[in-house]
Amino acid sequence: MVKGRHALPPPPGHGFPTGEFAGRTRRIQQLMAAATLDALLLTTPQNFRYLTGYASQFWESPTRPWFLVVPLQGDPIAVIPEIGGAQMGATWLRDIRTWPAPRPEDDGLSLLADTLGVLTRHSGRIGAEMGREMPMRLPLLEFQALSRALPDHQMVDASSAIWQARMVKSEAEIACIRYAALIASTAYEELHEYVRIGMTEREINSLLTRKMLAAGADAVPFLPVISGPGGVEQIVAGPGERALEAGDVLFIDTGVTYDGYFCDFDRVYAVGEVGEECRRAHDAVWCATQAAIDGLRPGMTCEELWGLMNAVLEEAGSLSNNVGRMGHGLGMQLTEPPSHMPGDKTVIEENMVLTIEPGMEYAPGKMIVHEENIVVRASGAELLSLRAPREMWVVSG
Amino acid sequence: MVKGRHALPPPPGHGFPTGEFAGRTRRIQQLMAAATLDALLLTTPQNFRYLTGYASQFWESPTRPWFLVVPLQGDPIAVIPEIGGAQMGATWLRDIRTWPAPRPEDDGLSLLADTLGVLTRHSGRIGAEMGREMPMRLPLLEFQALSRALPDHQMVDASSAIWQARMVKSEAEIACIRYAALIASTAYEELHEYVRIGMTEREINSLLTRKMLAAGADAVPFLPVISGPGGVEQIVAGPGERALEAGDVLFIDTGVTYDGYFCDFDRVYAVGEVGEECRRAHDAVWCATQAAIDGLRPGMTCEELWGLMNAVLEEAGSLSNNVGRMGHGLGMQLTEPPSHMPGDKTVIEENMVLTIEPGMEYAPGKMIVHEENIVVRASGAELLSLRAPREMWVVSG
Repeated sequence: MVKGRHALPPPPGHGFPTGEFAGRTRRIQQLMAAATLDALLLTTPQNFRYLTGYASQFWESPTRPWFLVVPLQGDPIAVIPEIGGAQMGATWLRDIRTWPAPRPEDDGLSLLADTLGVLTRHSGRIGAEMGREMPMRLPLLEFQALSRALPDHQMVDASSAIWQARMVKSEAEIACIRYAALIASTAYEELHEYVRIGMTEREINSLLTRKMLAAGADAVPFLPVISGPGGVEQIVAGPGERALEAGDVLFIDTGVTYDGYFCDFDRVYAVGEVGEECRRAHDAVWCATQAAIDGLRPGMTCEELWGLMNAVLEEAGSLSNNVGRMGHGLGMQLTEPPSHMPGDKTVIEENMVLTIEPGMEYAPGKMIVHEENIVVRASGAELLSLRAPREMWVVSG
Repeated sequence: MVKGRHALPPPPGHGFPTGEFAGRTRRIQQLMAAATLDALLLTTPQNFRYLTGYASQFWESPTRPWFLVVPLQGDPIAVIPEIGGAQMGATWLRDIRTWPAPRPEDDGLSLLADTLGVLTRHSGRIGAEMGREMPMRLPLLEFQALSRALPDHQMVDASSAIWQARMVKSEAEIACIRYAALIASTAYEELHEYVRIGMTEREINSLLTRKMLAAGADAVPFLPVISGPGGVEQIVAGPGERALEAGDVLFIDTGVTYDGYFCDFDRVYAVGEVGEECRRAHDAVWCATQAAIDGLRPGMTCEELWGLMNAVLEEAGSLSNNVGRMGHGLGMQLTEPPSHMPGDKTVIEENMVLTIEPGMEYAPGKMIVHEENIVVRASGAELLSLRAPREMWVVSG
């Protein structure tokens, strides 16, 4: 465990009770009924884990397709490669159908078509992952072959229904995100103790990753470390070989996971002294974040929440912002719907977990982004990350 | 750096010369011409990185689609969200077109359709990632909208052409895989120094991940740690909370990356004493591996290579094997084509990087898999992993 000012509390522990998965399934089935779907066909690691609890790093291998079928009534059915059968049997699922994969000439498709065919005699409509922020894991040629094998059926987009369920989190899910955020918060606060001028971005990435793993993170899939003299021009590609110099701005964003759930928030450090312009911009994004935290109420739209932040940034003279939005949903993915941006009319509900992420370009090619993670409660925002101080933290020689 | 018996040599360093990307592009264009394709449309992180060198952890966010267009002549064109523009400009690409994403009503599709429209006036055939082991990152609804925006064009599968290019590695790619394999080999050999009876699978996963990051791995996306009394019944889901006990078999598989390239090989440890049956099975899979390493020649098919291993396992009384094959291609993905299995007639070529991975069930519910990584040379297999000893390594109290 990291020994720091913040001793971490005990972790929430891995795994969810069966009742949680059964409840999620019932909720999905209500949404399926509303959308006149006879069955749902799921292929992504997140959707599998959401309904079954099945956790595996084997998703890293794209060779074999995996299928989860959710009927309108009853429990989900796994149609999966033999290699996964034993461990899927340890989940709450009872109906697990396997085939000897890989089998390029029929990699589960006939077994899947048989399974779906029996379940979809009502409307014939099968919901699939066809919409935004949820690309199907099944190759398109295979999906087309499946559609041909079910000629009396219609494949329709079910991503809205799935997101409607996944966007609102249970207390058990929130506990995982809170723990991930606490691990990252602690590492951020202690960063000045082990990061020094002269270290490269890559060294900082490696060190910080190891600190967070030692503190109990399951994985650190997202950790851009980006530095630049007086500011950074982008926030998505890094680390590189650049070594920290006095006068740099150091930007770090972190997505660590605990039991399948991400945190996602950044911090900006001054390396020694940075210019007044940069410090003013940091203050502006800090204040924009605070305006969103203070002003958020369930019932608002994402567009309205964006408006609270944007007013502060415009007042501060923001030139623009290439991120395109000021925060988003958070959960089993680093980024999930909704998006805080003009045009997103999603109504913010209790127990949604969101990032608050205002950013601004304060000089040509110099941008600053601030971010916190919150859960929406009846009374407003509850912080999951430990709130950053208003003044930038400093890394010194 | 890990201080061990094997001091690691200096790493090959990150990044490839521009000539490497230009060469890969020309090779792809030859394959496009052979397949009568006017352009290629690419969306996955691996295909982007293969042709541009663009490295980012931001792929973890599925919100915004990214597109790479490869014309039949000339350099690739990036059609990407504004957020990625600055850093894409640091690659060898010169034609970078951006739009302010996310923009759900038109997330780059009109810009992409304009780009493709101009380039595809010859055959009108556009190659896309539609085939095996390469699911498109673009949601299906968006792909359908793109197809409607290009009514005179035909979207066809280009995965075979892409795999034909990517399957054969350059010396620079091989150096990355060799380095990743060396990091994992060293960690495996030293495991008995820091793993003890009583540690949980999850603790071992965390410790081993941190060791390999400290030794210079960029990331450790794949590290199943699985234990069981006298054997394990599966090799893909783990780590869990189980603590090592005397008499266990401990299975660890590792995919670490260096500069975007994976190694992928496993080791099996005896925790104290394990039964004769298990040790005999380990010997059989070790010998099957050796038979493949000794017998491999360019010009053989994958099916023939499988035959060399299968003969040894059948002789040893293998019951079966739920993995479905005995190794595969390796590179920017943990698993890539081809597959060593009956029916895979892919001809093995020089500079392919392959896993050799025979497995057997030696008792009901008890399986053992052995694995090494090799590169194919004119004279046969050259090991990239440090060859495991014939006797199982032992973890003790």
